[in-house]
Amino acid sequence: MNNFTFYSPTYFVFGKETENQVGKYVKRFGGTKVLIHYGGGSIVKSGLLDRVVKSLSEIGIEYTTLGGVKPNPRSGLVYEGIKLCKDENIDFILAVGGGSTIDSAKAIAAGAKYDGDFWDFYEGKEITDAIPVGTILTISAAGSEGSSGSVITHEKGMLKRSAGGDVLRPVFSILNPELTVTLSKYQTACGATDIMAHVFERYFTNTKDVEITDRLCEAVLLTMIKEVPTVIEDPENYSARANIMWAGMVAHNNICGVGRVQDWSSHRIEHELSAMYDVAHGAGLAVIFPAWMKYVMKNAVGKFAQMAVRVWGCEMDFENPEKTALEGIHRFESFLKSIGMPLTFDEIGAKESDIPEMVNKLMRDNDSLGSLVSLTADDVEKIYRLAL
Amino acid sequence: MNNFTFYSPTYFVFGKETENQVGKYVKRFGGTKVLIHYGGGSIVKSGLLDRVVKSLSEIGIEYTTLGGVKPNPRSGLVYEGIKLCKDENIDFILAVGGGSTIDSAKAIAAGAKYDGDFWDFYEGKEITDAIPVGTILTISAAGSEGSSGSVITHEKGMLKRSAGGDVLRPVFSILNPELTVTLSKYQTACGATDIMAHVFERYFTNTKDVEITDRLCEAVLLTMIKEVPTVIEDPENYSARANIMWAGMVAHNNICGVGRVQDWSSHRIEHELSAMYDVAHGAGLAVIFPAWMKYVMKNAVGKFAQMAVRVWGCEMDFENPEKTALEGIHRFESFLKSIGMPLTFDEIGAKESDIPEMVNKLMRDNDSLGSLVSLTADDVEKIYRLAL
Repeated sequence: MNNFTFYSPTYFVFGKETENQVGKYVKRFGGTKVLIHYGGGSIVKSGLLDRVVKSLSEIGIEYTTLGGVKPNPRSGLVYEGIKLCKDENIDFILAVGGGSTIDSAKAIAAGAKYDGDFWDFYEGKEITDAIPVGTILTISAAGSEGSSGSVITHEKGMLKRSAGGDVLRPVFSILNPELTVTLSKYQTACGATDIMAHVFERYFTNTKDVEITDRLCEAVLLTMIKEVPTVIEDPENYSARANIMWAGMVAHNNICGVGRVQDWSSHRIEHELSAMYDVAHGAGLAVIFPAWMKYVMKNAVGKFAQMAVRVWGCEMDFENPEKTALEGIHRFESFLKSIGMPLTFDEIGAKESDIPEMVNKLMRDNDSLGSLVSLTADDVEKIYRLAL
Repeated sequence: MNNFTFYSPTYFVFGKETENQVGKYVKRFGGTKVLIHYGGGSIVKSGLLDRVVKSLSEIGIEYTTLGGVKPNPRSGLVYEGIKLCKDENIDFILAVGGGSTIDSAKAIAAGAKYDGDFWDFYEGKEITDAIPVGTILTISAAGSEGSSGSVITHEKGMLKRSAGGDVLRPVFSILNPELTVTLSKYQTACGATDIMAHVFERYFTNTKDVEITDRLCEAVLLTMIKEVPTVIEDPENYSARANIMWAGMVAHNNICGVGRVQDWSSHRIEHELSAMYDVAHGAGLAVIFPAWMKYVMKNAVGKFAQMAVRVWGCEMDFENPEKTALEGIHRFESFLKSIGMPLTFDEIGAKESDIPEMVNKLMRDNDSLGSLVSLTADDVEKIYRLAL
């Protein structure tokens, strides 16, 4: 296990009707003039925005709103939000939505405290200050409600990049599983795939002697394998929604990823896909992750066999561990298919002819990608082709 | 899953030689005049105190010291520490030691910000303010480095009671597994038993639909089952020490206990034992927990069978789940024995004739104890007798 620091100071408020307490928490964390940031308007239609506004108003907190966040959130709205925060002296951002809305809010929060272009942070500049962000989560997926990260796509060149820093961790996050009940099966499955992918990016490591974090990773995966099919079958199942929602936070606040070198190449390979086709991130991950697994599996047979046995319930083939390892990947593919996820370029409308451009965009600033296996441009191209 | 809040804002600094950074962290969290609180002097002999003082001095932080914390920490030293803090305007308490030292530091921290008797908090008064506490942990056991709780024994009547509140969570905790290498096998095993007990108190619940937290609990237990025998065999094994140390934090900062009614009757039954005989808390738990399990098992056969299968690797006896459940408890007992833990009153010098007094002290303010099964005084007496 490597040396590490771990800091997850978010105050989590979990359960039924908890969004009605939002005013109290904004006040507790010092908000007096709030930007409510949200997405495409479903929170308006569902009445959630009204409940939020009511809770803020009752406690005497001023607010303004900025909607319109799209999946794979864009830089344009971030610039707009930063201007709004500066013009109106906003001192708290409340993100009401999923990972895209929260990531957009984090970008605005950092940019509003910075004189330069917020995109600097997404090109590597350290973030040292940000307006406090609180969240009301409406989809279990990105884990941004507890994480230090944010992913934004710049409209100039459609570059999808991430930034991070402990100052971006939400000061509070309200997680009410009831709010996820109205999601479609497809959205639910995309979110679930993202959660599992967050675990895999941490799980597959060359760092030795990481039993506790391996086991915590497996705990999240086993929970997803039990609960996701339940929700796909019965979307109103509160208990399954609740287990998935807490699993999604645990998967990405990094408690199960500390002390190890993490990989993250599949996420970066996927980001080019969702930036180019605007496909849901989770669907892109369903296409890329099994391909990556098959491509790198021979370099880490023991770890893949461990996943097969401990997570997918495979019998260990002691004479041929590779067979076990591959069986685990196949069961993951079957699982994805069973919850309605795509597995190929075709299914998400991606084109073989675009592969060179995606490889080029991804690798132009890097010689290699990932750490379980260090991937070259040639490797990345082969992984895309395995997903055709 | 029940509604819950979860707040674990401690900044964890984990790994080799991390104690040398303590000055930086005290400064980051606002300390200017520090009380270094410690135990029996092993940190003096080992040179740890010198390294701590050097790190503080280099950064210009003033300090004073208060040693002498004993296992099952007492109220007398807490009163002394409170007076010292008030007299010398201490603004930060650095606990260097194990759970006893950290618990004592938390009690001093709360008491120093209160005009009344600190013991009020241990009789149920809410704690709303405390001096910030940082820790350098020297034994994996109590989990106090990440928890909101503190347990103190009052010398008047030898009452062992707990208090808690989010303001008691350490602002930072430095976890260097190297510092635990010099512990005896017995101390190591006592700590390990305490960690596992913290999980069991959460695991055995009547709350339904708690898959994610069940799985997280099991992750900690599976890690302990692998790593503790390694450390008993090879005390200098850093990796195993490291896995146990992070497991100990995870076991008790409550991330694996949220959203469920917890039990805690075994801890309270044990507290009477360690208060009366001054036996190590972990050793007391090794005596009490299997007895409690056997006593309540019939009321929760499914959950005990789940533990047997998922944690202890038992084959499920589908025709007779009780047999499986009992087999799991027997494997837990064998495990405890294998790491050198006592299992009976005799082995810790406890006397059958003292049972009525312990039952009386424990139950005089309560009609019942625990939640998996609500225990009467008669039940508690039977559990003590099962441990004879």
